[in-house]
Amino acid sequence: MPTPQAIPDLKTLKEIYQSQQSYTRKTPLIPSEELGARVQGKVFVKAESLQKTGAFKFRGALYRLLQLTEQEKLRGVVAYSSGNFARGLAAAGEILGIEVHLVMPADAPKNKIDNARAHGAEVKLCYESTPSREEAAAAQAIKLSQQHGYSLLHPFDDAILIRGQSAVAMEASEQLQQMGETCHFLLCPTGGGSLVAGSSMVFNAAHYPDTQVLAIEPSGYEGMTLSIEEGQRARAYGKTASSCDALQALSPGEANLAIIQNSEVAGLAVDEAFVNEGIRFAAYNMKLVLEPSGAIGIGALLQHPEKFRGKTSVIIASGGNIDIEKYARIIQR
Amino acid sequence: MPTPQAIPDLKTLKEIYQSQQSYTRKTPLIPSEELGARVQGKVFVKAESLQKTGAFKFRGALYRLLQLTEQEKLRGVVAYSSGNFARGLAAAGEILGIEVHLVMPADAPKNKIDNARAHGAEVKLCYESTPSREEAAAAQAIKLSQQHGYSLLHPFDDAILIRGQSAVAMEASEQLQQMGETCHFLLCPTGGGSLVAGSSMVFNAAHYPDTQVLAIEPSGYEGMTLSIEEGQRARAYGKTASSCDALQALSPGEANLAIIQNSEVAGLAVDEAFVNEGIRFAAYNMKLVLEPSGAIGIGALLQHPEKFRGKTSVIIASGGNIDIEKYARIIQR
Repeated sequence: MPTPQAIPDLKTLKEIYQSQQSYTRKTPLIPSEELGARVQGKVFVKAESLQKTGAFKFRGALYRLLQLTEQEKLRGVVAYSSGNFARGLAAAGEILGIEVHLVMPADAPKNKIDNARAHGAEVKLCYESTPSREEAAAAQAIKLSQQHGYSLLHPFDDAILIRGQSAVAMEASEQLQQMGETCHFLLCPTGGGSLVAGSSMVFNAAHYPDTQVLAIEPSGYEGMTLSIEEGQRARAYGKTASSCDALQALSPGEANLAIIQNSEVAGLAVDEAFVNEGIRFAAYNMKLVLEPSGAIGIGALLQHPEKFRGKTSVIIASGGNIDIEKYARIIQR
Repeated sequence: MPTPQAIPDLKTLKEIYQSQQSYTRKTPLIPSEELGARVQGKVFVKAESLQKTGAFKFRGALYRLLQLTEQEKLRGVVAYSSGNFARGLAAAGEILGIEVHLVMPADAPKNKIDNARAHGAEVKLCYESTPSREEAAAAQAIKLSQQHGYSLLHPFDDAILIRGQSAVAMEASEQLQQMGETCHFLLCPTGGGSLVAGSSMVFNAAHYPDTQVLAIEPSGYEGMTLSIEEGQRARAYGKTASSCDALQALSPGEANLAIIQNSEVAGLAVDEAFVNEGIRFAAYNMKLVLEPSGAIGIGALLQHPEKFRGKTSVIIASGGNIDIEKYARIIQR
C-alpha cells in the first residue's frame, strides 16, 4: 500500500490535468433539473461520453503515453483490451506518433476492432480462451512485450494511468468552482477502479471534506465494494447478467485499491433494470447517448433517490460506446 | 426592410448574449474528426441539443421575455406553437415568474403538451383546423391576447426574438476564438428563420468577412432559399414528406428575411435520407441525440461534401427533442 505521500497534492493533480489539455476535450458538466427534482437536490452530469473516442479512458491512456521515456516511445506499447481503453490508447498513440499493439479477443465486437485499426493500431486477435479469454489475451500481450521490447500497459491497474484519469474529476471540480457549486456525492462508474481511484485523489477528504466519493458497480460485480469492506482485495461472484461490459472486472486493481483505501470511498450497487432506466433517462431528458457503464451513475440515483435527497450530486457519465442496434432496443421499451 | 443600422454591432450582440448567460447553458462546440475526414477539412458541431429544454429556442424565448416592460411582465404572454418554442417559452416563463399561455393544436404530441404544462404554462388546445391548424391556433392566440391583455409573441417572426437567438452564434464565435479557429461556413437549420437571421447578425460580412452563413432547409421547404433568390418573400411548395417538424414554415418571417437580405446568406437543401444519416452519424460518432431538424446540418455536409472540402465548417445542431420510439426506429436502420 502506498504511503499517504503517494496521493499527489492538488497542485500536482492540476499539472497532470494541464499536461493533457491540448489533446483532450473539455466535456460539459450539465445540470439536470429533472434529476434534481427526483431527489429535491441538485444533480450535475459530467458527460465524458463527449470525450474524444467516446469515453474517459482516452485521458488516462494519453497521459500514460506522455509519461513514457523517449526510448520507450520509440519502441511502442502493447496492451490487451476489447473496450474503451483499446480505443483510447489507439487514438492517443495516433496523435502522439507512438506505435500501439493491441491483443483483442477474436470475438470482440467488430466495430471495436475496426475502430482501433482505424486509429492505426496493430491489432492481433486472440483465439485462445483458457483459462479465460482475458487471461489468454494478457499472456499473449506479455509475450509480445518480451519479444519486441514494447512497454506492456495495463488497462486499469497502473499508478500512472490512474493519475491520468484524475483529470476527469479535476476538470469537474474547476467547473463546479466556476458555477459556485459544491459536491456532496461524486458517483464514479467502477470496474477495475481507475476512474474512482483517480477521482478520489482529487475529491480527497483532505481537499474536499464535504464530498463522499462513491464507487458505483453493477449488482453481482461489486469487487470494489467488497474489497473496501474487507480491507483487502476481494472477488465478486460475477455470473449475473449485466450489460455494463466495461465494469465486469471481478477484483479491483491493486494500485487502485491502495489509493481507495487511503480515501473514504464507499460502494453502491445498481441493478440491471436501473442501468437501463439511466440510459433511457439520458436519451430522453438529456439528449445524451450513453453506454450501460456510462449510465450506471444515473441509474444509481434513480434506484436510491433517498440517499441523495437534498444534496448536490455529480455523476460521471463515463462513456457512450454502445452498439447502436442494442441501444435502440433499450431505449424503445 | 430595416436599414443597415438595424443590424446591431458586435458590442451590442455581446451584451445581448451576456444578458442571458445566467439563465442559459453554455453548450459545447465539439470538433468531429470523423466529419472533418469526410471533407478533408475541419468540422465543429455546436450542440444546442444540450441547451436547457433541449433546443436553442430557449435562448430567444428567454431574451424576448426579459425585454418586456414591467407592466407586460405582470400581464403575461400568449403564443401558439406546438414545438420547441412552446417548450422554451414555458421554461423561460417559469424561471422569470411570467405567466405563459400557449395555444397548441389538439393533435400535438402528448409529450410536448405535458412538457409545457410541467413548466407551469397554461395550455389551451385548439381543435379547429380551418384554414390550417397553424392559422386557427394563431387566431385563437390573438383573441386571447385581445381579451386578457397578454403580449402576443410570434415563434419566429419577431425582431427582438431574433436578437435573442443571435446568442448561439455569439457563443460559438467566442469558442472558436478561444480555440484559435476560423469559420468558413456556418450551417443554420432554417424554418421561419430566426436562428439563421440571428446568426447572420454575428457572422456578418462586416464582422467576419471569411464566413459564409448557410440557411439549411429540408428539400421541399426551401422558403428562405427561394426568398433570397427572388429578393422577396416567396413560398415553398411543401407537401413533401419531411421529418423536420421544426423546419416546415413555407415562408420565412418578414423580420427574418429583412435581416437576411442585409447579409450574404445562401440556401442549401437537404434530402430526407441525409437528415436520417445525420441523426445516425450524431448518435454513432458523437453520442448526441438529435431531432431531425437538429441533425439537418450534419446531413447537409454528408450530402454535399464537395462544398465543404478543405474548409472549416461550424454546424449548429439546434435541438434534440424527438419522440424516442421514432428515434429508435431511425437509428436502427
